[in-house]
Amino acid sequence: MNHYDTFTRRDIIAGAALTAALAAAGPARAHGAPAGSVKTIDPAVDRWRGLKASVASYTLRTMPLDRAIQAIRRVGLHYVSIKDSHCPLDSSAEARKEVVEKFKAAGITPLSCGVVSMRNDEGEIRKAFEYARDLGLPTIVASPDPGALPILDRMTAEFNIRIAIHNHGPEDRKFPSPNEVWKAVQGHDPRVGLCIDVGHTARAGVDPSACMRRYRDRLFDCHFKDISAISQRGNTVEGGRGVLDMRAMLQALLDIRYAGLLSFEYEKDAMDPIPGLAETIGYSKGLLAGR
Amino acid sequence: MNHYDTFTRRDIIAGAALTAALAAAGPARAHGAPAGSVKTIDPAVDRWRGLKASVASYTLRTMPLDRAIQAIRRVGLHYVSIKDSHCPLDSSAEARKEVVEKFKAAGITPLSCGVVSMRNDEGEIRKAFEYARDLGLPTIVASPDPGALPILDRMTAEFNIRIAIHNHGPEDRKFPSPNEVWKAVQGHDPRVGLCIDVGHTARAGVDPSACMRRYRDRLFDCHFKDISAISQRGNTVEGGRGVLDMRAMLQALLDIRYAGLLSFEYEKDAMDPIPGLAETIGYSKGLLAGR
Repeated sequence: MNHYDTFTRRDIIAGAALTAALAAAGPARAHGAPAGSVKTIDPAVDRWRGLKASVASYTLRTMPLDRAIQAIRRVGLHYVSIKDSHCPLDSSAEARKEVVEKFKAAGITPLSCGVVSMRNDEGEIRKAFEYARDLGLPTIVASPDPGALPILDRMTAEFNIRIAIHNHGPEDRKFPSPNEVWKAVQGHDPRVGLCIDVGHTARAGVDPSACMRRYRDRLFDCHFKDISAISQRGNTVEGGRGVLDMRAMLQALLDIRYAGLLSFEYEKDAMDPIPGLAETIGYSKGLLAGR
Repeated sequence: MNHYDTFTRRDIIAGAALTAALAAAGPARAHGAPAGSVKTIDPAVDRWRGLKASVASYTLRTMPLDRAIQAIRRVGLHYVSIKDSHCPLDSSAEARKEVVEKFKAAGITPLSCGVVSMRNDEGEIRKAFEYARDLGLPTIVASPDPGALPILDRMTAEFNIRIAIHNHGPEDRKFPSPNEVWKAVQGHDPRVGLCIDVGHTARAGVDPSACMRRYRDRLFDCHFKDISAISQRGNTVEGGRGVLDMRAMLQALLDIRYAGLLSFEYEKDAMDPIPGLAETIGYSKGLLAGR
């Protein structure tokens, strides 16, 4: 049976001639398409446009280290901000070295840790800086006692490690938004700066993009996410399903040539966070590529 | 101890006055932000811009129906193209009704099925149309024997159900690209048309966006994905990690006011497809929102 019996005879002859000509030209030119006719994206182009997309490993807090590393590989990122669930604050220097080696073996570079709570206690704060030093981290994301800022001045100078003070929304009496952090760090060592948590910032009624631009000189880290509502009850949701203008935030980060981590922090679905994390990462990358 | 001992007295007084004034204005105006200062996205806006984003349930082929439904809910979509793994082709009308009811109870509307292979056999093809009719589907995605097109003319007329002929890449001797499908459907019932599989189209050396525009009049369904390379060996990868210009394809679909399904088909990771599917969906939504 002739499968092409609904074609005219002329179609069949023309088609056969075309097929023969294209077959001679090789597989890339098969099926009526001139070579190179498929418009493609160069895989070598960085779709993050220079932003250091990372996972805040708090997202993976219910997983042991090895599974957390697999999860970061799964979502295709190459940086991490280490939460103490994946390297305890009281770990030995040897254990810390092993953690870093495991990340690096998986193609993942740790560039910050946290959020680390810091009381106004020099011995305790020194331990946090030693932890970051042993992990080779340039930045500690921290929630310090505001009275500890003079200690932070001394420690950032001694260790040459930056502190990025994390704002935690309207419930945070110390640092609800980046505005309070910015105010607090004035007059302190320039290595004492901000980690803008975009969700908590918006929940506090403050625009995250505006803060990124305003506080660019001391913006060292960023917790990136979407949230369900601009209110105290707003919760993290999959990127693109909430109310935050993630496009405007990414644009702000590009405009200020932000060099710190863009840390995806997906608090929802603690026992099974990878799908929501992946969707958030995909959405953000799409926003950048859609510009 | 005064936690704010690094502030000047004037800062403290000014801050206290501001805090009091803003507290009186309510929580939305806390922390130095005027009401409504957070630039948000209206959650009522359709970020798919009218496109009917769906899951081609072939993606979830290793899952029983209930888990597949949960997975579609998890990735936030509301349409499905049903693969026979979730409703066998030889199922009873009663069983088919139950499948549709389960999807609808979960907020998911089935709008096509497939890919259904069709030999040049009227009895067999009739069964496929009865299957689609029982499932309430307006479209069957099919891979028919080209000789069966006259039968498809009769069946589409009798059932008023469309056939979207799926192209399957360079290995497909019948329909490698939409070009061959378009050619085959000329002179047939206008309800006999195309499902463009963008991955297989590109692997065949043909530009998917150009086909969408060129064949818009008979474009009834679409299998949407990214692939690793424009070659026979190109495989599905997470959206945004491959070489396809997904932005250009989405733009083409918007431009032609495409009304069929945008079916995400993620062939990779058969045993654990949700993260890659979620990343692909997020990326595509981000591309649309980033425009």
